[in-house]
Amino acid sequence: MTLPWTWRQDRVGFFRAKSRDDSFYQLLADSARHAVAAAEMLTQMLGTSAQEREELAPQLKDIEHEADEATHAIIHKVNSSFVTPFDHSDIVELAAALDDCTDHIESVGQTVVLYRMNGLMPEITAQMEVIVRMAELTAEAMPRLATMKELKDYWVEINRLENEGDAIYRGLLRDLFGGAVSDPIEVIKHKDIIERLEMAADAFENVAHRVEGIAIKEA
Amino acid sequence: MTLPWTWRQDRVGFFRAKSRDDSFYQLLADSARHAVAAAEMLTQMLGTSAQEREELAPQLKDIEHEADEATHAIIHKVNSSFVTPFDHSDIVELAAALDDCTDHIESVGQTVVLYRMNGLMPEITAQMEVIVRMAELTAEAMPRLATMKELKDYWVEINRLENEGDAIYRGLLRDLFGGAVSDPIEVIKHKDIIERLEMAADAFENVAHRVEGIAIKEA
Amino acid sequence: MTLPWTWRQDRVGFFRAKSRDDSFYQLLADSARHAVAAAEMLTQMLGTSAQEREELAPQLKDIEHEADEATHAIIHKVNSSFVTPFDHSDIVELAAALDDCTDHIESVGQTVVLYRMNGLMPEITAQMEVIVRMAELTAEAMPRLATMKELKDYWVEINRLENEGDAIYRGLLRDLFGGAVSDPIEVIKHKDIIERLEMAADAFENVAHRVEGIAIKEA
Repeated sequence: MTLPWTWRQDRVGFFRAKSRDDSFYQLLADSARHAVAAAEMLTQMLGTSAQEREELAPQLKDIEHEADEATHAIIHKVNSSFVTPFDHSDIVELAAALDDCTDHIESVGQTVVLYRMNGLMPEITAQMEVIVRMAELTAEAMPRLATMKELKDYWVEINRLENEGDAIYRGLLRDLFGGAVSDPIEVIKHKDIIERLEMAADAFENVAHRVEGIAIKEA
Repeated sequence: MTLPWTWRQDRVGFFRAKSRDDSFYQLLADSARHAVAAAEMLTQMLGTSAQEREELAPQLKDIEHEADEATHAIIHKVNSSFVTPFDHSDIVELAAALDDCTDHIESVGQTVVLYRMNGLMPEITAQMEVIVRMAELTAEAMPRLATMKELKDYWVEINRLENEGDAIYRGLLRDLFGGAVSDPIEVIKHKDIIERLEMAADAFENVAHRVEGIAIKEA
Repeated sequence: MTLPWTWRQDRVGFFRAKSRDDSFYQLLADSARHAVAAAEMLTQMLGTSAQEREELAPQLKDIEHEADEATHAIIHKVNSSFVTPFDHSDIVELAAALDDCTDHIESVGQTVVLYRMNGLMPEITAQMEVIVRMAELTAEAMPRLATMKELKDYWVEINRLENEGDAIYRGLLRDLFGGAVSDPIEVIKHKDIIERLEMAADAFENVAHRVEGIAIKEA
C-alpha cells in the first residue's frame, strides 16, 4: 500500500506532510503546453500574409486566454491547499513565469497584426525557431518536477538556447540599424518585434532559473 | 466591549493575533487616492497646451513624491509591526503595486512635457479616461479590505476596464502606424506616450490581482 | 573568546542562530565590485571610437558573465545554508538586484556596439559618471551589512545620485527631441542608449531600497 503522503522535515525543523498528489505537475505541464501552442501559432502567423495573420490572431488570443485561466487555476489550488509539493510561493512564481512566456508570444502576434507588417526580416524565423524549441523543452520538463530527476539537462539546454537566441537577436539589430531596413517607421516596427521575441526567450530562461532554484532547495 | 484584537488560527496551525487596527487599510486607501489625484492632474495636462503642461508638471511630481512617502510609511509600519492583518509580504507588495500606478501616470506627464508634444492623437483621451476610472475604483476598494466584502466586484470591473483600455491602446497603435502620424519623430513620441499609458492601466490590474490573491488566501 | 554565532529572538518568537560568518557580505561585495568594473569598462567604451568599442565589448561581456556566476554562488550558498545572517529571500533578492545593475550596464555596451554609434550626445558622459559613482558607493556599502552601521548615508546618497541622474536623463531626452539629433534612426538609437543608462541607475537605487528594507527589519 502506498500512502498518499509522506512526512519530511522542513527547514525550520518541523515535519510537514509532502503530498504525492501529482496534479500540480500536471497543471504546470498544461500551462507549458499552452506556451507551445502559442509558439506554433505565432510561427504560422509570421510565415504568412498580413491578411491571414489578422484571421489567425483571435486563435492566438484564445490560447493566451486559456493559459491565463490555467495560471489562475494553479494559484487558486496553491492558496487553498494546506500542503503542496514545494513552497507555495515557488509554485505561484513558477506558474506566473510560465504564463509570462505565453503572454510575450501573444504580444508579438498582436503587434505584427497591428503594424500590418510586410517583408519581415528573414532571420526573424531563426529567432522564432529557438523559442519553439524552448517551449517544447519546457513542456517536457514540467512532469519531471514530480521526481526532480533529469532536470539539469533541461535548464542547461535552455541556457544554451537562450544564448543562441541572443546571438540571433543581436545580429538582427545590427542588420536592422546597418541599413537592412531604411524607412524609419519600418525600423521602429522591426525593433519592437525583435525585442518582444527576445523577451519571450528571456521568459523561458526565467522559468528554467526558477526550476533550478527549486531543484537546489529540494536537493 | 470590543477587544482590540481577535485570535485566529493561521496556516501552519498556530494562533496569531489579528489586529483590528484599521490603519493599514487607511494607509493603502491614502496611497490609492494619490493615484486618483495623479490621474486627474494628468487628464488636465493632456487637455491643455504644451506651455501650460510645463507649469502643471511640478504639481504632478509633488503628487508622485507624496505617494512615494505614503508607500515608505506603509513598508515601515509593516516591518515594525509584530502582527498585521495579512502576511507582511502581501501588504508590502500591494503597497508597491499601488505606488507603481502613480509612478507610471507621472512618467506619462513628464514625457509629454519633455517631448513638447502638440497635436496629441484624440483617442488618447479615451485611454486616459479608463485609467481615471481604474484609479477611482481602486481607491474605493481599499477600505473594503478591512472586511474582505464586496471585493470581487472591484477586480472583475478592473479586468473589464483593462480589456477596454487594451482595445483603445491597440486601436491607437494601429492608427499611429496606419498613417495617422507621418513624421517618424512624432511616431516615436506617440508610441512612447501610448505605451506608458498602457503600462499605467496594467499597473492597476496588477493591484487588482494582488487583492484577489489576498482574498483567496483569507477565504 | 568570540562565539561563531549568537542566539537572537526572531519575529515569530523562536530563537534562531545568527551566524557571524562574514562570507555572505564578501560575496555581495564581490558582486558589487563586478558592477564597478562594468561601469568603468563602459565609461572607457563610450569615450572611444566605434571600432575600439567593438574590441572592448568581449571584456565587458566577461565581467557580466563573472557577475552572473557570483550571483549563482550566492543563491546556491543561501539555499544550502540552514542559517543565514538575514532572511533567505532578502539575500536572494539583494543578490539578484546587484546582478541587474551589471546586466543593465552590459546591455548599454552591447547596444552601443550593435548600433555602431558615432557622435554620441556629450551629456551621456555625465549620465555615465553618476552610474560609476553609484556603483562605487554600493561596493563600499556591502561590507557594512555585517554590522548594519553607517548604511543610511549610503542609501541617502544613492537616492540623491538617482535624482541627479534623472535630471540628466530628462535633459538628454528634451535635447534629443528638441532637435539636437535630426536623423530619426539616430534618434531611435540615442533614445535606447539613454533609457538603458537610466535603467542602470534605477537598478542601483533598487539595491539601495533593498538594503534599506533589510536595515528596517533588523533594527
